[in-house]
Amino acid sequence: MSALLRIGVFDSGFGGLTVLRALLPQMPAAEFLYVGDTARLPYGSKSQATIARYAVESAQFLVAQGAAYLVIACNTASALALDAIRDAVTVPVLGVIETGAASAAAISKSRDVLVLATDATVQSHAYAQACAAHGLRALEKSCPLLVPLIEEGWTEHPITDEVLRIYLEEAMQTARERGSTPDTVLLGCTHYPLLRPLLERALPPSMQILDSAETTAACVRHDLEARNLLPPESLSSLHAARGEDETPSPASRCRFFATDSIDKFQRLGSRFLGHSMQAVELMDLGG
Amino acid sequence: MSALLRIGVFDSGFGGLTVLRALLPQMPAAEFLYVGDTARLPYGSKSQATIARYAVESAQFLVAQGAAYLVIACNTASALALDAIRDAVTVPVLGVIETGAASAAAISKSRDVLVLATDATVQSHAYAQACAAHGLRALEKSCPLLVPLIEEGWTEHPITDEVLRIYLEEAMQTARERGSTPDTVLLGCTHYPLLRPLLERALPPSMQILDSAETTAACVRHDLEARNLLPPESLSSLHAARGEDETPSPASRCRFFATDSIDKFQRLGSRFLGHSMQAVELMDLGG
Repeated sequence: MSALLRIGVFDSGFGGLTVLRALLPQMPAAEFLYVGDTARLPYGSKSQATIARYAVESAQFLVAQGAAYLVIACNTASALALDAIRDAVTVPVLGVIETGAASAAAISKSRDVLVLATDATVQSHAYAQACAAHGLRALEKSCPLLVPLIEEGWTEHPITDEVLRIYLEEAMQTARERGSTPDTVLLGCTHYPLLRPLLERALPPSMQILDSAETTAACVRHDLEARNLLPPESLSSLHAARGEDETPSPASRCRFFATDSIDKFQRLGSRFLGHSMQAVELMDLGG
Repeated sequence: MSALLRIGVFDSGFGGLTVLRALLPQMPAAEFLYVGDTARLPYGSKSQATIARYAVESAQFLVAQGAAYLVIACNTASALALDAIRDAVTVPVLGVIETGAASAAAISKSRDVLVLATDATVQSHAYAQACAAHGLRALEKSCPLLVPLIEEGWTEHPITDEVLRIYLEEAMQTARERGSTPDTVLLGCTHYPLLRPLLERALPPSMQILDSAETTAACVRHDLEARNLLPPESLSSLHAARGEDETPSPASRCRFFATDSIDKFQRLGSRFLGHSMQAVELMDLGG
């Protein structure tokens, strides 16, 4: 890879690949390093100290590989380890929770936001805090079956549709009890963008869906522009200057590292990334 | 706890508590130490070397706490780490896979066995090998949604019933294609005993269900008798001799250790054990 801007993307597993997928077209002149700490996933059931230690190790690895900017594409690590990561590295670090809350604040009229997330993320109340900082009330709904259903590949399955409707009905029941009127649904798990078609059918059209992959990609782009870190030339002009007539494929701008189970990473990962993956490299972080 | 026979039971999480639940009435004069390596679950996505290292650490911990016999109540560890554990400790070690296969061999007439298990256990083909050693053909069916559905508490839910019927229909379709006629269903995951009522309704009455918790408890008892390790007196005669008029509660004969998330362990664990749990002790294995 050349010496263009290198962005490190970190997740405990595959879900963060939806964030990478959204980042790729936003920053056509950047290169990406992705770490999936698959040997130690899921982070959700672990203590804050353990999660912070794991996330810091991955962040330091990405910086050592030349990343000049880090995206924490993992809700649990964003909720519990963002300060520890910022203390441990000197490059800018952005997490998916703050970008999701900021985007919800920009569009919600009722100031009530429904956050769908894993149990661990809900228990942390990180979205409630991030939303409160923007003057929003968050109704956090734990949806523990959605990740396994997505990993089973049942993203359009009637069972998944039914489970989603049960979760949404439970959430709206809680909203009614609290006098809350959410007009925005924040997908607080990087797996959930794969359920967007089902969600659009299950929700009333008045409710807007905010996908943390897309909101994070947009925020990263703004932040890089504000910091003057974004390569000034567009990819096409860059390649025109080089005399090349085709932009490199997204996959050629990415390197993937996983801490375990390379086969599963490639098999599941391509579903999240939206295209097949280059060779995945094994990374040993110990533990 | 007194100096009676002490049996160590190990799992990566809560599922092995179904095995402990079956062991308690089988050995009323024994005491039990249970380790759930919750900080590092699930084992299924990890490499054999990592799983063996984790399982050996827990096994050595149990022996250091006085266990004179070890039950590996975890399918993944039984599949991938049994030899490593036997090399690392001097006490007898029994795993759930060999006991399940031996029990199936004792009752199957068609010699075809349907094994329901997690994806990791199926990928290891440990049941196929253990069944083949008894002259049985195993049809291994991966059921990745069942553990999350059980952990969600939906053990009697229509969704779980529907998912189970989909998995069983897929398995029977494969059986027809192979000309296999299974008459026995082996529950190859320690979570699955909680689905026994649903399974009994979903399966034709001619098919027998073998629950690895019950088969393991029966095998442990036989093995202890054969090794002359079982305390000779029954609990009632023991307590009569001591002048006590009540047998101690099952919980008073158990100590529980978890490597992380004590709260979740107690909350979920009581569902698997069938009654509330004594205080769970935190155990730091590093990693």
